[in-house]
Amino acid sequence: MAELRRDPITGRWVIVGNDKEIRPEDFEVESHEKGKGICPFCPGNEAMTPPEIIAHREGQTAPNTPGWLTRVVPNKFPALQIEGSLNKRGIGVYDLSNGIGAHEVIIENPDHNREIADLYDHEVERIVWCYRNRSIDLRGDKRFKYILIFKNYGKSAGASLEHPHSQLIALPVIPKRVQEELRGSQRYFEYRERCVFCDMVKQELQDGKRIVAENKHFVAFTPFVSCFPFEFWIIPKEHESDFSYLQREEAVSFASILREMLKRVKVILRDPSFNFIIHTSPLEEMEKEDYHWHLEFMPKLTRLAGFEWGTGFYINPMRPSLAARYLREAKI
Amino acid sequence: MAELRRDPITGRWVIVGNDKEIRPEDFEVESHEKGKGICPFCPGNEAMTPPEIIAHREGQTAPNTPGWLTRVVPNKFPALQIEGSLNKRGIGVYDLSNGIGAHEVIIENPDHNREIADLYDHEVERIVWCYRNRSIDLRGDKRFKYILIFKNYGKSAGASLEHPHSQLIALPVIPKRVQEELRGSQRYFEYRERCVFCDMVKQELQDGKRIVAENKHFVAFTPFVSCFPFEFWIIPKEHESDFSYLQREEAVSFASILREMLKRVKVILRDPSFNFIIHTSPLEEMEKEDYHWHLEFMPKLTRLAGFEWGTGFYINPMRPSLAARYLREAKI
Repeated sequence: MAELRRDPITGRWVIVGNDKEIRPEDFEVESHEKGKGICPFCPGNEAMTPPEIIAHREGQTAPNTPGWLTRVVPNKFPALQIEGSLNKRGIGVYDLSNGIGAHEVIIENPDHNREIADLYDHEVERIVWCYRNRSIDLRGDKRFKYILIFKNYGKSAGASLEHPHSQLIALPVIPKRVQEELRGSQRYFEYRERCVFCDMVKQELQDGKRIVAENKHFVAFTPFVSCFPFEFWIIPKEHESDFSYLQREEAVSFASILREMLKRVKVILRDPSFNFIIHTSPLEEMEKEDYHWHLEFMPKLTRLAGFEWGTGFYINPMRPSLAARYLREAKI
Repeated sequence: MAELRRDPITGRWVIVGNDKEIRPEDFEVESHEKGKGICPFCPGNEAMTPPEIIAHREGQTAPNTPGWLTRVVPNKFPALQIEGSLNKRGIGVYDLSNGIGAHEVIIENPDHNREIADLYDHEVERIVWCYRNRSIDLRGDKRFKYILIFKNYGKSAGASLEHPHSQLIALPVIPKRVQEELRGSQRYFEYRERCVFCDMVKQELQDGKRIVAENKHFVAFTPFVSCFPFEFWIIPKEHESDFSYLQREEAVSFASILREMLKRVKVILRDPSFNFIIHTSPLEEMEKEDYHWHLEFMPKLTRLAGFEWGTGFYINPMRPSLAARYLREAKI
C-alpha cells in the first residue's frame, strides 16, 4: 500500500508509492542534442553578453575577452531590474512593488560540452566559490532580502541556453517555499530547541538506507518525503544556516559531493534534465540556530505538473530508499 | 518594468512582466492527436474499468453496459486505497500514515472526441451535478478530510487517457495549497471581518479589466497575481464556502460559464493542455464565513517547471489584464 508521508519542516503531505517494479530505465528523458547556432557564452563571443561582473581568469587576460575559467554576467533578459526603488504600494486588496532585483548568470566553464558531472573536482570548486563570492557581494545592497542560486539543465527544466551555466537572483522578498521552511523549522525549534535539519541528518545517517554519498563535511540523501523520484539533498553535517559563510575547505568538500551526485544521476538516469536550488537563510539574519542551508536537486522525470502545482499535493511512485539504492549502486 | 505582485490570500509573490508583445500564438501547444488503441472509457468497453459507482443513464439500461451519459468508476490505478485504516504513526522526526483515500474517475460523456468546450450547456451541467453528488456521497466517510475535484487535459498536463474525464480524490489530509488559502483568508477575516475572496470579486467587478465572463451566479477573471499566462478563476459572486452546497440553478450557471471559458481558451490558444481544480472548504467545516469556493484553471503553456516548484516563486511574462482582453475578444 502507498504511504502518506509528512514533511517535518513544511508540513507537506506526499503520497509515496511502493512500486518495487520501477527502474531508472522506465523514465523517459529528453535528449540534449546541441544546436548549431552561435553560443553567446562560448569564449570569443564575450561581446554577446552584457559586460562581465567578475571572472576567474588565467594570467593577465582583459575583461570580456577569452581566457576566463568562470565568468559572471548580468542576465541579458532579466526577470528583475537592478536600477530603481521598490516603491511598495497597494491597489485595494492587492499589494505590489516595482520589479527590483539582480539576475546574474554564472557561466560555469569555457567548454560548451562539459557539465558539472564531467568536470574535475577543482573545477567545480571554482563554480561553488563563485556562488559564494557573488552571494557575499550582493549582501551589501540593502534592498535585497534573499539570494537564490539555482541551475536549470535541459529545456524541460527551463534552460534556454545549452552552455553550462547557473543563475543567481537577488530578491527584495523571501520566496514562499523558503518562507515555509523558515517557519516550519522555527516551530520545531521552539518546541524542541533543536534544529530540525540537524535531527533529520542524524536520523538519516543512523538509518542509512536513504544515504547515497558522504564526505568530511557533507551528506547526500534522498529525503523520506521526496516529492519526485530521485530527488536528493546535499546538506552540511554540522549546523550552518548560511551558504555564504562557506569556508574554503568546506567548498572543496561540497564541490566534490555535488560532482559525484550529478555523475551518479547522469549514469543511472541517462542524463536527465534537472533543477537544483540552494536554500539558505535570508540576508537580514545572522547565524540562525533553527535553519540549515542545503541544496535540493529535482530531476525532470515525471509529467504530473498542473495537479501538483494547484494543490501542493505530490504523488511520488517510488520509495526514496529505492532511489537511493540505485544511486548508490551507480557505476561511476 | 516588471512588477512584484503579492497574492492577498496566500502571500505568494509573483513577478509579473509587462511584455506587450506577447500574443496567444507565441505559445507552443502540444497536439492532441488521438491514438488508435481501444479506449476503456468508450461505450461497449465498460468491462475494462472497475464496476461503476454511479452513472447517469437514459432509460432502463443496466449498470456497466452502454446507455450512460456520465459514468463514475474507481480509478483502476488509484493513488490511494479505499479499504483500511489510516494508522497514523511516527518514525523519529517523520510522520506517516497508510495511503487511504478514494480515487474516482468521472467519464464526462460517451463521445471520445467531445471535450467540455464542445458540449451543450445541459451536458456540462450533468458533469457538474455529478461532481456535486460524488462530493456529497463521500462526505459520509469520516476518514476523509478533503475532497478534490480536478481535470487533467493533455499529456503534458498529466492525462494518461484521451477520453474526456475528470477525477476526484478524497484525502485523509488537507492539501498544502488549500491549507494556505484557508489560513490566509482566515487571517484576512480576523483583521477585517470580511471574506477576502468577496472583496476580490467586488474589486475585480468594479475595475473590470481582468473580467472575462459573467452570468447570474458566477464571474470568471484572470487573477491580479496569476502565476501563469491565461490562468483564470471561476467564482460564485455571492459568498459560498462549499462546492457541494451548489443548488440546481447555480449548477446551470456554473456549467455555462465553465463551458464558455474553456471554449474561449480553446479558440484563442489552439486547444492547449490544461488543468483545473476546484478549491472548496474541508469536509469537517460547515458554512465558513472566511472561505469561498472557486475553480482555478491553468493552461500548460510555459516550461518553467522546476525552479518554480523548488521556490514557490513564479515569473509570469504576461499581464493578466492582457490575457483577459484576449480571452474576452475570442470569437466563440
